[in-house]
Amino acid sequence: MNKEKRIYSGASPSEVEADLYELVNFQEQGLPMEILTRLIQERLVPHLVRYDRPEFQSLYNFMPEKGALLGAAVALRHNQGVTNWQVSPGGVMLEELCTRAMCGLFGLPANSDATFMYCGTYANQQAVYLALHRHAEQMGFDLSSRGIRGFPHPDRLRVVVSEEAHFSLRHAVRMLGLGEECMIRIPVDEDYGMDVTEIPRQLKKGGQARDIFCVVSTAGTTSTGTIEPIQALAELCKREEAWLHVDGAYGLAFSLLPELSRRFTGLESADSLTWDPHKQFGVPIPSSLLFVRRAADLKRMAIYGEYFNRKDDPEPNPGLKSPPSTRPLSALPLVTTVRYQGLAKLRERLRAPLTAIRKLSEQLEAEADIEVCHTPQTGILCLRMKPPHVPATELDSLQRFIYDHIKQEGRRSISMTRLADRTVLRLVALSPSVTFEALKETISDIRALAGRFSSRPV
Amino acid sequence: MNKEKRIYSGASPSEVEADLYELVNFQEQGLPMEILTRLIQERLVPHLVRYDRPEFQSLYNFMPEKGALLGAAVALRHNQGVTNWQVSPGGVMLEELCTRAMCGLFGLPANSDATFMYCGTYANQQAVYLALHRHAEQMGFDLSSRGIRGFPHPDRLRVVVSEEAHFSLRHAVRMLGLGEECMIRIPVDEDYGMDVTEIPRQLKKGGQARDIFCVVSTAGTTSTGTIEPIQALAELCKREEAWLHVDGAYGLAFSLLPELSRRFTGLESADSLTWDPHKQFGVPIPSSLLFVRRAADLKRMAIYGEYFNRKDDPEPNPGLKSPPSTRPLSALPLVTTVRYQGLAKLRERLRAPLTAIRKLSEQLEAEADIEVCHTPQTGILCLRMKPPHVPATELDSLQRFIYDHIKQEGRRSISMTRLADRTVLRLVALSPSVTFEALKETISDIRALAGRFSSRPV
Repeated sequence: MNKEKRIYSGASPSEVEADLYELVNFQEQGLPMEILTRLIQERLVPHLVRYDRPEFQSLYNFMPEKGALLGAAVALRHNQGVTNWQVSPGGVMLEELCTRAMCGLFGLPANSDATFMYCGTYANQQAVYLALHRHAEQMGFDLSSRGIRGFPHPDRLRVVVSEEAHFSLRHAVRMLGLGEECMIRIPVDEDYGMDVTEIPRQLKKGGQARDIFCVVSTAGTTSTGTIEPIQALAELCKREEAWLHVDGAYGLAFSLLPELSRRFTGLESADSLTWDPHKQFGVPIPSSLLFVRRAADLKRMAIYGEYFNRKDDPEPNPGLKSPPSTRPLSALPLVTTVRYQGLAKLRERLRAPLTAIRKLSEQLEAEADIEVCHTPQTGILCLRMKPPHVPATELDSLQRFIYDHIKQEGRRSISMTRLADRTVLRLVALSPSVTFEALKETISDIRALAGRFSSRPV
Repeated sequence: MNKEKRIYSGASPSEVEADLYELVNFQEQGLPMEILTRLIQERLVPHLVRYDRPEFQSLYNFMPEKGALLGAAVALRHNQGVTNWQVSPGGVMLEELCTRAMCGLFGLPANSDATFMYCGTYANQQAVYLALHRHAEQMGFDLSSRGIRGFPHPDRLRVVVSEEAHFSLRHAVRMLGLGEECMIRIPVDEDYGMDVTEIPRQLKKGGQARDIFCVVSTAGTTSTGTIEPIQALAELCKREEAWLHVDGAYGLAFSLLPELSRRFTGLESADSLTWDPHKQFGVPIPSSLLFVRRAADLKRMAIYGEYFNRKDDPEPNPGLKSPPSTRPLSALPLVTTVRYQGLAKLRERLRAPLTAIRKLSEQLEAEADIEVCHTPQTGILCLRMKPPHVPATELDSLQRFIYDHIKQEGRRSISMTRLADRTVLRLVALSPSVTFEALKETISDIRALAGRFSSRPV
């Protein structure tokens, strides 16, 4: 096969290991820069994945946008730690101004605030912690001192999520000492977003008294990119006095598109929101934001120190808003990409892959050998090949066969997941380079592979 | 003052805000690259701190080393997500090989393993979680399902740390649902490291039954860089069946120096270790490693998914070893800095600031107007000015006066902390550019400022 057509080398783990070994063969003496540069170019770069190819249709990765690269390069060279004023006055103020500007961009209330986090996983963890902390306050004790045992009935604490919530929520409740048994998972509707009509029945289950302190709406589920309802959950939260968290790591960006804004009705009443600018905004990983509706809510994270982040420091200390004491200048690439592209172009970039996915979905609806699994709301489409020669009982194996072959060929990258207990193929269009035509070519490949599938392995 | 001599602009928060406003003044239309570049150079860069100056003697920051920059630039351009094989075969294998090589470099047992974390704070959090998880297993239940309420006596759970442990341990027990009441803080000795002779008395306090599941030794305390004992705590852990965590975020690197290795006796029996290569190794932030003595211990973090990190994936998935599903190619700058410099030069770089700090400390011991607060073990020295004209009751105010003036002048950067309830000045030599001469100049400045101090504010 033409190597140029691959999106990575296609090498096996042992081949990659053999190539890379020299890089980690640490020696007393150093290597000249030219030799080291050549080692990286020849041994490592071929095994990296070219996210900028239109054939990369599997995951939320991309090559950084040009404006973002400018900011990232400055951040890299100056390596500013954005924890407090002393360590970087410019970095600290830029983060403060950038988070305020982002609150404005997303239409959050005047008194909202945000903090840069490393990734959506830690942002979600912090959101659930804040919810639990406020709940403890309402019960009259300080969670940060007493921990979960301060609750009269720790076994009743519950977080409500949908069955399609991201696994970072499972990490969150594990690491918060709650355990996964605290999760109430609401079944999903035909588009694989939370079915809010199911909530009353699910809450009644089990019979015992339950203490719901947090409800999570996923704005952009991982499997299908579905924006779950926010308004209905906001009402539930009001009744239960619970905290509403919107996990918009993938989807929140789409609230900037007027044609999608109705899906985000109720957003302004979320207590917290997670967003990953490193998904569609072209900034390098890692870069996430955790928004809170009331700036004061982040004060629950503050631990004052003596060597820095002192209680009496007059200047802003972003390091008080989250646990890490090492914080990079993540605001800069975000600011430069927005300023370089401008909001109009950003919206275009956001829209293009959605249009491509929708067009593909509409076209595939008419084709007999493909089952379109959901109506795509954003840039993800799950489908299932069902050619006439493959019996229903073999369809899961067929999807896996297609996925494995595409991975081995290395010319394109798609993903695979499970929906309603069935294996499906998943196409992701994150950057505008993933066009309708590129998606159609993938369908051709998939169809050709399906034709080669025989229910008895050869 | 000559602006060139400053390590940053010295501007006030409102001045910095005014300069930066244009950067976050988001518009529909984009800005040409030249204008954006100039905006950053003129408006932001002057307010960044020049960590490469010998006068930067306050915190653990620096400019990236040349070899590290090479790797970081490649990582930035390719923006690889190092979670699983599909998203970056080269990135995944490089992380696996790099963590194994690092285990070898630090002399950890053959079956040890490590994972890249964003920062020491999250590494410490994960270490305490792993300790608690194992403790739950010993009691016959699964922490990730049942949470802390699975313990028969959650109120008895205890973590032992020294009074000088980093505040990230406080974040860890807060966010793990234990609350700070679970901490037993052991007083420190004259060098501000844990006084192990105090342990029996502290453990007896309170009288009630206590369930110690984790003991933390800080290898390189934040205030004084003191390496706390490891061997004695390993013995305590054996008796209590507790997990030994070594927080070596700052200090672990010094175990590579033969002349300091005896301070790390017992290191091989630690269950887990935190290390920040972004401190002395010249790699850009963020970059931390969490080591475990038994590779299998990290399996407690694994959450398998359907869209990636599948249980039946044949290839390595570093994303299973920690919560984040977004993980950058942090291994690359670490590998390139070690290969470019070579181990011999790395040890020289590690040693130079230690030598400078020790020489300064020895010289200051003889000076009547300065109290050297501890015998420096690594690259940090805390001292207290006590000129004859300032009464003992005013000495705290004097240190603050000196610190504030140096911060305002902007020609150098020192830090301030509290030791044994007294305010002290703190000098940090992290990079070899902080020489003995540069430290001596700081002492001259400090002394001159002390001479200007009057107990009645003018």
